[in-house]
Amino acid sequence: MNFRATVNCDMGEGFSLYKIGEDEKLMGHIHLANIACGFHASDFAVMNETVQLAKSHGVAVGAHPSLPDLQGFGRREMAIEPDELKSCFIYQVGALCGFLKQHGLPLNHIKPHGAVYGQTSRSLPLARAVVEVAKIFSTPNEPVAFVGIGGSAHQTAAEEIGVKFIPEWFADMEYSAEGKLLITKKHDPVPLDIVRKRV
Amino acid sequence: MNFRATVNCDMGEGFSLYKIGEDEKLMGHIHLANIACGFHASDFAVMNETVQLAKSHGVAVGAHPSLPDLQGFGRREMAIEPDELKSCFIYQVGALCGFLKQHGLPLNHIKPHGAVYGQTSRSLPLARAVVEVAKIFSTPNEPVAFVGIGGSAHQTAAEEIGVKFIPEWFADMEYSAEGKLLITKKHDPVPLDIVRKRV
Amino acid sequence: MNFRATVNCDMGEGFSLYKIGEDEKLMGHIHLANIACGFHASDFAVMNETVQLAKSHGVAVGAHPSLPDLQGFGRREMAIEPDELKSCFIYQVGALCGFLKQHGLPLNHIKPHGAVYGQTSRSLPLARAVVEVAKIFSTPNEPVAFVGIGGSAHQTAAEEIGVKFIPEWFADMEYSAEGKLLITKKHDPVPLDIVRKRV
Amino acid sequence: MNFRATVNCDMGEGFSLYKIGEDEKLMGHIHLANIACGFHASDFAVMNETVQLAKSHGVAVGAHPSLPDLQGFGRREMAIEPDELKSCFIYQVGALCGFLKQHGLPLNHIKPHGAVYGQTSRSLPLARAVVEVAKIFSTPNEPVAFVGIGGSAHQTAAEEIGVKFIPEWFADMEYSAEGKLLITKKHDPVPLDIVRKRV
Repeated sequence: MNFRATVNCDMGEGFSLYKIGEDEKLMGHIHLANIACGFHASDFAVMNETVQLAKSHGVAVGAHPSLPDLQGFGRREMAIEPDELKSCFIYQVGALCGFLKQHGLPLNHIKPHGAVYGQTSRSLPLARAVVEVAKIFSTPNEPVAFVGIGGSAHQTAAEEIGVKFIPEWFADMEYSAEGKLLITKKHDPVPLDIVRKRV
Repeated sequence: MNFRATVNCDMGEGFSLYKIGEDEKLMGHIHLANIACGFHASDFAVMNETVQLAKSHGVAVGAHPSLPDLQGFGRREMAIEPDELKSCFIYQVGALCGFLKQHGLPLNHIKPHGAVYGQTSRSLPLARAVVEVAKIFSTPNEPVAFVGIGGSAHQTAAEEIGVKFIPEWFADMEYSAEGKLLITKKHDPVPLDIVRKRV
Repeated sequence: MNFRATVNCDMGEGFSLYKIGEDEKLMGHIHLANIACGFHASDFAVMNETVQLAKSHGVAVGAHPSLPDLQGFGRREMAIEPDELKSCFIYQVGALCGFLKQHGLPLNHIKPHGAVYGQTSRSLPLARAVVEVAKIFSTPNEPVAFVGIGGSAHQTAAEEIGVKFIPEWFADMEYSAEGKLLITKKHDPVPLDIVRKRV
Repeated sequence: MNFRATVNCDMGEGFSLYKIGEDEKLMGHIHLANIACGFHASDFAVMNETVQLAKSHGVAVGAHPSLPDLQGFGRREMAIEPDELKSCFIYQVGALCGFLKQHGLPLNHIKPHGAVYGQTSRSLPLARAVVEVAKIFSTPNEPVAFVGIGGSAHQTAAEEIGVKFIPEWFADMEYSAEGKLLITKKHDPVPLDIVRKRV
């Protein structure tokens, strides 16, 4: 049987002296890196290292912006207006683009992180706000894609606004019977054989 | 006698609900706005408003990055390595460039804020670190200038690295006999006639 | 007609160099000060000044803890678990008590700030979490009261847990027909005559 | 040969989802825990867990306050005035005392963290500012000690102000020939046999 998937993975989620995840080991095995931008994890020093690491492995770099909630790792839903969220994402994506400019890489995609991933998948006004950010950072030669949940407000907004949409699903998380994905603040690693079975 | 000065002014130094300065009144009277980038003042919402305001007055926009010290308004010197400072500035300048991209403006210049303005004027390695950021954000058609203290490490680094240098002096602050500028955490407004006399 | 009210007012909501409100003018006219604890406004320097100011006017001091949301001034609702919220409040109230200890004042009451004031008024588990904090900081000689919305989960929790309850209503804010109070991120000052009419 | 030392160890230095150190394993082997207070590491949730852990092992709890520098793990020296530093420490120690009150433990000692440990050991005005905080939190029955570098400004200030002083030295760090301790942002673990030899 043939199987092809583009593997995207959250990267650069350390902060200060803290490390989380094994970026060095994983970076060689993925196609797209979603790089944290300092609002749920990461900081300017970690971002610089992570962009360099992605570059050395030829991995395409995307932004992984979040609600402003470092202490909660961006996993707490927060009431936020579309305009406010749009500026919140422009700030973070812009910051990442600074490091991309330094290292000569284009911005490949944007994928919202954590709680706001769910919020934007269910609210069309919020989805539009964040998809517009992908439009703002797109150039004719280097369009920026949006990674989201297929069939959700993410996809509707991307089609409306004219941004390339990359649907994704999770190999290591639980879906409810209705297909709703639950974001939990802490979750245990999922054994690799279970991940394989789900794929 | 004829006298011409380019007036630059720190702008967008509110945060959250807080306002400071009178950006709306001043923006019509200056040539260059140094816009706070969230590390000593400002946040994504304030930055968006400030860039819009500058655009509506045709004012050239520069970045005003700081040490990471929101609680101290960037006015406390901090021990920081050149590499760390470079990344710190890339993050902030990149974030501002996100809003410039949104509103279709180029980045005109970079001017360090507060304590790090003094630190970079006295240390050549720190000066190089921040001037390099101006180089990174420059393009052949839109070079980014560096605003600093004439005759200091700022100017040396700018000349070394090949970045356009704009020397400045202050109309409302005190210089010591040796020409050293003292950055204080709080300072009172200076009456306009004194400012005029100094100019 | 005779009328008596105990006037409580949010105080110490500056931050860094920012000022908001006119604490010096108001402090002489109120009975209870709700002092910000650094999570929606204030910092260690502002808290120290505010406690001193309250002491010099003989005003009783309460804690005004918030969700961890400095950039949003604590006015954005956030998904938070009761245990997390309890620890969030213990941290802030404890910090304020440090300054009360320094200046020899007791803690008079706790009043949640902003969005979490509303959230705790509608959710009994959240209300219990924050009322328990008043219990923790109470001593036999110096009980700590809880200021909340009369008839809401605030009152139920206070009665269950055995904490003195002070119901309040607002002279300068709008109530819906059902008596629901809307917290908005920005609101205009209300003319004094309208406030008088509502009282 | 007989040897007795009181072992103190920094504890509770996680933050958000991040873990650092192995508190669960170590807590059974130490006498004094220096608990981070949220300014270089930790947050309200981590502090609550750490105080509970210390209590379950019968370990005496001290506060480990820092400069306000979460992104730098409190390891960057910062220019700060004595009054500002005093308030900075009162805030953090007060916050920790909230959790001690909840769990029925006394505050045993205060030990400054990281860069400010060095700064306060060399400057008598800064040393006085932080030793005074130990005095403020002391009661006749439960005095709060100060842990610092023997023979430094720490000891002088403690003797002046009348606070019990506990001198310490490090088993896993380098001293220069003059006995100056270098605080580095990152340092590698030191093999146990080298630690044993130094002791």
